[in-house]
Amino acid sequence: MSRYWSDLARTIVPYVAGEQPTGRTYIKLNTNENPYPPSPRVIDAIKSAANERLRLYPDPECRELRTAIAHYYDLSIDEVFVGNSSDEVLAFALPAFFNPGSPILLPDVTYTFYPTIAGLFRIDHKTVPLSADFTIPVEGFFRENGGIIIPNPNAPTGIYLPLDAIRSILDNNKEHVVIIDEAYIDFAGPSAARLIREYPNLLVTQTFSKSRALAGLRVGFALGQRELIQGLDRVKNCINAYTLDRLALAGAAAAMRDRAYFEETTAKIKHTRERVAARLREIGFIITSSQANFVFISHPKVPAGALLRQLREKGILVRYFNAPRIDNYLRVSIGTDEEMDVFLKAIEELVAGKQQSS
Amino acid sequence: MSRYWSDLARTIVPYVAGEQPTGRTYIKLNTNENPYPPSPRVIDAIKSAANERLRLYPDPECRELRTAIAHYYDLSIDEVFVGNSSDEVLAFALPAFFNPGSPILLPDVTYTFYPTIAGLFRIDHKTVPLSADFTIPVEGFFRENGGIIIPNPNAPTGIYLPLDAIRSILDNNKEHVVIIDEAYIDFAGPSAARLIREYPNLLVTQTFSKSRALAGLRVGFALGQRELIQGLDRVKNCINAYTLDRLALAGAAAAMRDRAYFEETTAKIKHTRERVAARLREIGFIITSSQANFVFISHPKVPAGALLRQLREKGILVRYFNAPRIDNYLRVSIGTDEEMDVFLKAIEELVAGKQQSS
Repeated sequence: MSRYWSDLARTIVPYVAGEQPTGRTYIKLNTNENPYPPSPRVIDAIKSAANERLRLYPDPECRELRTAIAHYYDLSIDEVFVGNSSDEVLAFALPAFFNPGSPILLPDVTYTFYPTIAGLFRIDHKTVPLSADFTIPVEGFFRENGGIIIPNPNAPTGIYLPLDAIRSILDNNKEHVVIIDEAYIDFAGPSAARLIREYPNLLVTQTFSKSRALAGLRVGFALGQRELIQGLDRVKNCINAYTLDRLALAGAAAAMRDRAYFEETTAKIKHTRERVAARLREIGFIITSSQANFVFISHPKVPAGALLRQLREKGILVRYFNAPRIDNYLRVSIGTDEEMDVFLKAIEELVAGKQQSS
Repeated sequence: MSRYWSDLARTIVPYVAGEQPTGRTYIKLNTNENPYPPSPRVIDAIKSAANERLRLYPDPECRELRTAIAHYYDLSIDEVFVGNSSDEVLAFALPAFFNPGSPILLPDVTYTFYPTIAGLFRIDHKTVPLSADFTIPVEGFFRENGGIIIPNPNAPTGIYLPLDAIRSILDNNKEHVVIIDEAYIDFAGPSAARLIREYPNLLVTQTFSKSRALAGLRVGFALGQRELIQGLDRVKNCINAYTLDRLALAGAAAAMRDRAYFEETTAKIKHTRERVAARLREIGFIITSSQANFVFISHPKVPAGALLRQLREKGILVRYFNAPRIDNYLRVSIGTDEEMDVFLKAIEELVAGKQQSS
């Protein structure tokens, strides 16, 4: 605490991201990165853009990248906003669409970054409790609110809400913006992007950090009708006229255009996820039906906190959230098949050892 | 305007950056970019970083880059904050250090981005009028305030305030944070970075977009005592835990380490500036004693608006601000000697033609 901090700086609760270790090499299953490298075309595009034109500002309208995204989703460029990560896009969306004094609704178990941004912009929020099985109860969002944010699939449960359910939430909420955060959508069912032309208050956000294997490039985007995109632009242009550098713009556009590579690596991760989930069930884990690039697991006999520490000792990082309802769960990112075999062997030993000793 | 925009989104006044033309090739003297390419070591560092590790999040603490900056300024890494452009750093600093209801002070002629950010965070501001010769009157900042922002050199005048004057402002303002925005400092006198250990409320911001020739890479930084840097971190972690991608981190660190290249290109730009300023005076322009990488000029007989359009027709972009006191001025970035010769020839013809016809 400093005497020079503003009242706001004293009260906000900054988000704490998963550990990015230096030094020892871990099997990193803690921040939902893609275990496969980005498309070789991404690397080529970045190397081509690493030239003397770096002395010039990038295109503030990011036309090449927005065109590539619009093409992928069969939308127009006016319906695409891009930013430095989907977190940043969300951080612009909250002040663009929500008002202090008019609380927004969030699931009670969800991405903890939402209340963090809301706090920065003095926007109140209320939570809607997940059902006992961690699914999102659609009817919980049929009450007065100043806006809604739902991740689909939800984090950290990984549970996917079918588009019928999203449609039902939208049909019951026409007055305020509904944000569907689809950070993990490519590992799950169809995107709500196809509902955008029907619902002028629907904003869909996505990221290049997961399915596009570019967490290190910092690119996210939002899809919505033109007036929503213009609202995001207004806030962006109060913070930073050029949020994406020339290299990120070139790399992300190349990633979006290489559909074959994206589909191949995404399918591999989904296949590994199902194999890992089946094995974890066999050795006694409770596991949500995650459709993300992670599994969310709990063991009835071995505390999650103990597993977290013991896995770390074995050189494997996973994520633990010390929060109500989920404090006996671990979120485990899906790595390569080889990495997951090491993980499974380690956790099998830990569970067997624990059960033996108890 | 959209029914879905928040009250804030309706009222903010987004910043409008200088034009980034596509299509026709212009001599671009409108956004203060560096006419020389970045150091070859920057390009090498970026190409090395364009590898499969882009699938992983970058270092959220940006240690390599902060170490390079700390080394350059003989500070500790705890006294350095980095962000995606100095605009973003400033956008984090305002809510970190200033409070709504406690107006901050700005020069009346200055970088128009400051009131824009202040508006987003509902922070009021008051202006201190520049003297008739556009210098900053130090005593104007000796009155009650909730904080101060002064660019040094000031924009768009380019006038540099000696460190004695900065020290005097700091000595008279110990209660709130004083931000010195040094976007153009490398073309002028010494940086206020050397005052940081003396003044716990001094925050100095800088950018890689001008003297480091990396406008396309989006990197800025702040220097200040540790508690101020921590305050910036708190706000950053409410918006985006990783604002700098792996390529920007690698490129900027390489730029900061290549001191010889930086000193050579900066000296060339200063030399060209003095030559251009002398010639502009000869042909009748009023010109501030700019110590930035631009000149700020006005002609008693030829309106700035007319010159702006006619230069554009000749393929030369410069910047015009339709604002009180400066609406007959043009800001002209310093390009290469060859570019400035084309500019001088063009403007000489325009001025001669106008004087002949009048």
